[in-house]
Amino acid sequence: MTVSGGFPSDGRKPSKVSSESGTTLCIVGLGLMGGSLALALRRARRQADATAWQAAGLPTRIVGVGRNKQPLAAARSAGAIDAWTTDLAEGVKGAGIIVLGSPVRTIIGTLPEVGRCADAGALVMDLGSTKSRICAALDGLPAPLQPVGGHPMCGKETAGFAAAESTLFDDRPFVLCPLARTSQAALERSKALARAIGARPVVLDPEVHDRAVAAISHLPYAIAVALVRAVDDSGDATTWSLAASGFRDTTRVAGSDVDMMTDILLTNRSAILARLDDFSTHLETLRSALDKGDEAALRAQLAAAQERRSSLRFLPQ
Amino acid sequence: MTVSGGFPSDGRKPSKVSSESGTTLCIVGLGLMGGSLALALRRARRQADATAWQAAGLPTRIVGVGRNKQPLAAARSAGAIDAWTTDLAEGVKGAGIIVLGSPVRTIIGTLPEVGRCADAGALVMDLGSTKSRICAALDGLPAPLQPVGGHPMCGKETAGFAAAESTLFDDRPFVLCPLARTSQAALERSKALARAIGARPVVLDPEVHDRAVAAISHLPYAIAVALVRAVDDSGDATTWSLAASGFRDTTRVAGSDVDMMTDILLTNRSAILARLDDFSTHLETLRSALDKGDEAALRAQLAAAQERRSSLRFLPQ
Repeated sequence: MTVSGGFPSDGRKPSKVSSESGTTLCIVGLGLMGGSLALALRRARRQADATAWQAAGLPTRIVGVGRNKQPLAAARSAGAIDAWTTDLAEGVKGAGIIVLGSPVRTIIGTLPEVGRCADAGALVMDLGSTKSRICAALDGLPAPLQPVGGHPMCGKETAGFAAAESTLFDDRPFVLCPLARTSQAALERSKALARAIGARPVVLDPEVHDRAVAAISHLPYAIAVALVRAVDDSGDATTWSLAASGFRDTTRVAGSDVDMMTDILLTNRSAILARLDDFSTHLETLRSALDKGDEAALRAQLAAAQERRSSLRFLPQ
Repeated sequence: MTVSGGFPSDGRKPSKVSSESGTTLCIVGLGLMGGSLALALRRARRQADATAWQAAGLPTRIVGVGRNKQPLAAARSAGAIDAWTTDLAEGVKGAGIIVLGSPVRTIIGTLPEVGRCADAGALVMDLGSTKSRICAALDGLPAPLQPVGGHPMCGKETAGFAAAESTLFDDRPFVLCPLARTSQAALERSKALARAIGARPVVLDPEVHDRAVAAISHLPYAIAVALVRAVDDSGDATTWSLAASGFRDTTRVAGSDVDMMTDILLTNRSAILARLDDFSTHLETLRSALDKGDEAALRAQLAAAQERRSSLRFLPQ
């Protein structure tokens, strides 16, 4: 396997790095999620018992794969990965675990080549934010590969390896979607990986996952986008100068990476459209009560939302 | 003036507290905003030069007025106020500055009695979140009183004196709405008060203020309410268990005090309805692009929102 131990600045072919014994993890896409996975595994391995780590099939070596050299070299410099390559085939060869950390449609587009090049028996996971389309694509992998769809429920609106954090997954749910063909051993290994980075594995059906995230993630994003655009239309400098923490928090997710979000919206379309319609119905009910000056109806809606919102418990960030 | 120096636990009449020389401030409503004002003034006065403080007409004594004894007694125990009473007339008598910190419609309902009982020349301010209706009511005060509408652009979703903080106003805009009849000296005194608590005074026309906050505060609140209710309809335990920081932040303001928000919505109705319609138009444009799978149109909307949101600078909290 020919992968670079660093970023060759003089245009030479990357130097060969020999494989060690143990499991190699190949992360395709060293952005916020893939980069954080690498950093979290580094941290966990330093604190773990080496024998137990290897017995759980956890990675002892991490190879990064991406289209651009810069984030790969940055990840190598940060000690997040042992080696890197821009050649997908080269990167996945020899890996016992392959994790795809790109935007959803890139993951789907990458899977055929992963299928052609990966070693038999390799666990193939992803970190994509929608699961139905990805799991259908994972099912197209050759039989000797072991696919498990994955989605760690965390993130922030800053993209790229520079934003990656070893603590990103701490105490967060990590949704896992095994396929009918997935072996119990492969599912257990994916759970061990999720636990190793501090997350809580939650096994879900892809459609159940996609309906849930349409409500609690994709709908709030679509709303934040429309809110920023609406205020941008009417807002002058005075308006913006008065914006305080309420506006800041309500619109934070509108700053999310556009490539990532385009893929998410387009691969979870029907679930999101249904939630958008629910939302519009509730907003129209509120608008109508306000328009009529119907205080009792208005107050009942505010109180219902206040009660539900106050009952929710979120992890501190 | 008969005001209590503490909470009489044995049912006796509150003991008399004699007025000192200097300016007395009467705060009506010792909730989050009124309580924070008292705490911020205490902090500022400890750090200020006493002569300059008095020369600016800033308060040397604070009397709290409210309907319920409990928050008043708590504010007294915390050293936020010097004395308190549940009798509005008693509280405002002798005060050089009167600040109304109740919900908007309570402020409006309180003003006639303030007008009857306040000393001639007193500065009458408020901390209400909408300004047109309050400023119209302020204009009904007897001529010897000096009214200035006010709205500090800060807050949090926890109400009550227990949530009050001396730093709540730090570096925040404090909107001031003088009336045509307001003297320059009274406006300067209100600015000095705003600066004393760490805020930045911003003089605005009430209608300009109300249009701006309809966009950056009341619209986000209405949206958050409808969002929580929509997810509550469709969401099961799995859905809620996956809710992460995006949902938490997007819906935070839905936890706001219902009395306060009912008053705000009902006293800024037309401006909010206009912004709701703008928002719905943008959301429908986004929905339509998603429904059609029009990637270019979708991406253009996400990119416009991402660019605008990323350009905004907010104060850290």
